[in-house]
Amino acid sequence: MANALYAQSGGVTAVINASALGVIESANIHFDKINKIYAASNGISGILREELLDLSAEDPQELQKLMHTPGGAFGSCRYKLKPDNQNDFLRVLEVFKAHDIRYFFYNGGGDSQDTSHKIAQFCQQQAYPVTCIGVPKTIDNDLPLTDNSPGFASTAKYVAVSALEASLDVQSMCDSSTKVFIMEVMGRHTGWIAAASGVIKEKPEDPPHIILLPERPLDTEKLLTKISETVQQVGFCTIVVSEGVRHKDGTHILTAKSRDDFGHAQLGGVAMSIAKIVQAKLGLKYHWAVLDYLQRSARHLASQVDLDQAYALGKAAVEFALAGENAIMPIIIRTSNTPYQWAIDKAPLAQIANQEKSLPDDFISEDGFSITTKAKDYFLPLIHGEAYPPYHNGIPVSAKLKKVPVNKRCNSYP
Amino acid sequence: MANALYAQSGGVTAVINASALGVIESANIHFDKINKIYAASNGISGILREELLDLSAEDPQELQKLMHTPGGAFGSCRYKLKPDNQNDFLRVLEVFKAHDIRYFFYNGGGDSQDTSHKIAQFCQQQAYPVTCIGVPKTIDNDLPLTDNSPGFASTAKYVAVSALEASLDVQSMCDSSTKVFIMEVMGRHTGWIAAASGVIKEKPEDPPHIILLPERPLDTEKLLTKISETVQQVGFCTIVVSEGVRHKDGTHILTAKSRDDFGHAQLGGVAMSIAKIVQAKLGLKYHWAVLDYLQRSARHLASQVDLDQAYALGKAAVEFALAGENAIMPIIIRTSNTPYQWAIDKAPLAQIANQEKSLPDDFISEDGFSITTKAKDYFLPLIHGEAYPPYHNGIPVSAKLKKVPVNKRCNSYP
Repeated sequence: MANALYAQSGGVTAVINASALGVIESANIHFDKINKIYAASNGISGILREELLDLSAEDPQELQKLMHTPGGAFGSCRYKLKPDNQNDFLRVLEVFKAHDIRYFFYNGGGDSQDTSHKIAQFCQQQAYPVTCIGVPKTIDNDLPLTDNSPGFASTAKYVAVSALEASLDVQSMCDSSTKVFIMEVMGRHTGWIAAASGVIKEKPEDPPHIILLPERPLDTEKLLTKISETVQQVGFCTIVVSEGVRHKDGTHILTAKSRDDFGHAQLGGVAMSIAKIVQAKLGLKYHWAVLDYLQRSARHLASQVDLDQAYALGKAAVEFALAGENAIMPIIIRTSNTPYQWAIDKAPLAQIANQEKSLPDDFISEDGFSITTKAKDYFLPLIHGEAYPPYHNGIPVSAKLKKVPVNKRCNSYP
Repeated sequence: MANALYAQSGGVTAVINASALGVIESANIHFDKINKIYAASNGISGILREELLDLSAEDPQELQKLMHTPGGAFGSCRYKLKPDNQNDFLRVLEVFKAHDIRYFFYNGGGDSQDTSHKIAQFCQQQAYPVTCIGVPKTIDNDLPLTDNSPGFASTAKYVAVSALEASLDVQSMCDSSTKVFIMEVMGRHTGWIAAASGVIKEKPEDPPHIILLPERPLDTEKLLTKISETVQQVGFCTIVVSEGVRHKDGTHILTAKSRDDFGHAQLGGVAMSIAKIVQAKLGLKYHWAVLDYLQRSARHLASQVDLDQAYALGKAAVEFALAGENAIMPIIIRTSNTPYQWAIDKAPLAQIANQEKSLPDDFISEDGFSITTKAKDYFLPLIHGEAYPPYHNGIPVSAKLKKVPVNKRCNSYP
């Protein structure tokens, strides 16, 4: 009888485990078609190593806690199957065959959807019947065709709320202390996360006063002028910067000193680089924060819309699979903005793999430092609702899974 | 008739405005004794400049929102009255006299309580009858005599929850990605904030695996050994570091390169310095976060205990004043730990001013890298309860005050 395999891939989010639960619960409902539901330990690496977990051994009450557990409960990975090396694909097929995997649900971003697609194609070539469905996930919000990607809205909410709170702090001290506050957020290639912080701006004097996006090359002179003007007019200046912001020549905003001891340019630290320019050129007191992993794991402030969508997409993945779809990914369609309404549709993996959706031009203001009303209208419904986790003794409760391994049936690999 | 003046001082917190509301509401109840309640704009600077705000002009419903507004709603400052210069004190007295200020409530940390104390003494010498009451506040938790300081517990909760969430993220990726995660928190002289992150550790393998405190000199070799061991045993290592951690010789953990362009050593960036050592010596993949102002403004995750205490201390300040006390500060007494119970008492400002309470030795484990059960027993009750702010359109609601200025009656100063 057919078994299903679920795996997590790439950078994790505050709600990826809600998608996992959607897959698991939906698979359990269809016990007539799906026998066992397994999870790969550490994503595709776990498949290659034949490290599968038997989810039927888990306490259903504990599994429920996946709804409010950040990170990847089964482990994720950064490994990418080498397209020019059949061995990895043959190994995946071997493990699928050994464990009667007929349904494969891969929960990840653009690279991962490419992997799902390649596995689907390979298994088809090898005449092994397996249904491969992608489940979208990325805080970067750069997956094409879907209105948004689960994980993004919670990050957006956390970043917007953090920018608002820190700005209230800076505002109250700026008379005698810090004038420029720089908050660095993720976004190596696209500025979705930084841009989302713009939702807290209602009036021109409101923060964030400057948003720096990878979609617009950094013009240092223009930036310094804008900072000066803002400090003069408002008393302080809040800047939200994408880690991926670049100079006109395409190089990242890093001095040579910011290279690590092996000479690798390290992203993360852009806020500090900008702070140094601000002090050297304007002599203003600054502070900077780097949110790093906090922004993708802050389940304590998840968006209810994001959580609902993450779960629904996991559920839909199974439903599409059982309805005979293959090599597709369920996507979110925005059917109405006022009131906000959404529905689930599907898109072929072939159209999703390795595509990157940048911030549209009409989301960015003419000066490149803020977002447009159109962008705000897009972002605001996504961050609606606060999906708080339960707490015990003042600390959020998260799932403690048994992670019972499935007996190995293959030789070790490689 | 007697008027009261409330002012905020030093670094602000997520709950300082709850203390403000406690003062305001309590003063309003006693309208037979207190005529007008004013707030200084930007703390003591606003008194010197005679920039006072008339709180009776504020909408009471809007004032209620101070309970969930982070930052300092009336503005704070870093200015310290010069003890060897009578002019500042004479000016304070002039402004007090001009506006019939007979009650002065100064909401701040150690330095500010010193200021309250000096103003009380000076006015007494000058035979001007004013009651000076300190209202405690500091995320650093370094005020003596009080069990804890309002603002600290919310920061502690935010830092603990952030360390937990980020660790769940790192744990799920460590098989193929980041092995060492370093989170930098505030604490220039004391390690209370970093130490509080230890509450999330239940088993030896739980994060945070290493806490670096200013109370213990950094031994780089010992640190590297502990990181190596942790990564081998647990797969990843979460480090929470106080910005004030130092080498044995008392110097901060900063390379020469970390000095700013004017040659000032900038705190903030310790996480990156440690990350560089980790990569150079151990070659492990790292990530780091710097929480900066987020940790003192994160009202979205305030501790209910903290909020209750902040409000109660503001209220108590007025009650003590009206009961004839002078030059004191209301403090928190822990009357029971299981169940947690607290009461309010008072302490003379003379005993509080310029004292700094370090983390007790018996709160720190023998190896210096974690906290003891005694410390956990102290911290856990403080972070109990989630005092969520209301949200509108997915964004927290904060008070928008009119800030109506009181007519000036003095000449400008200086």
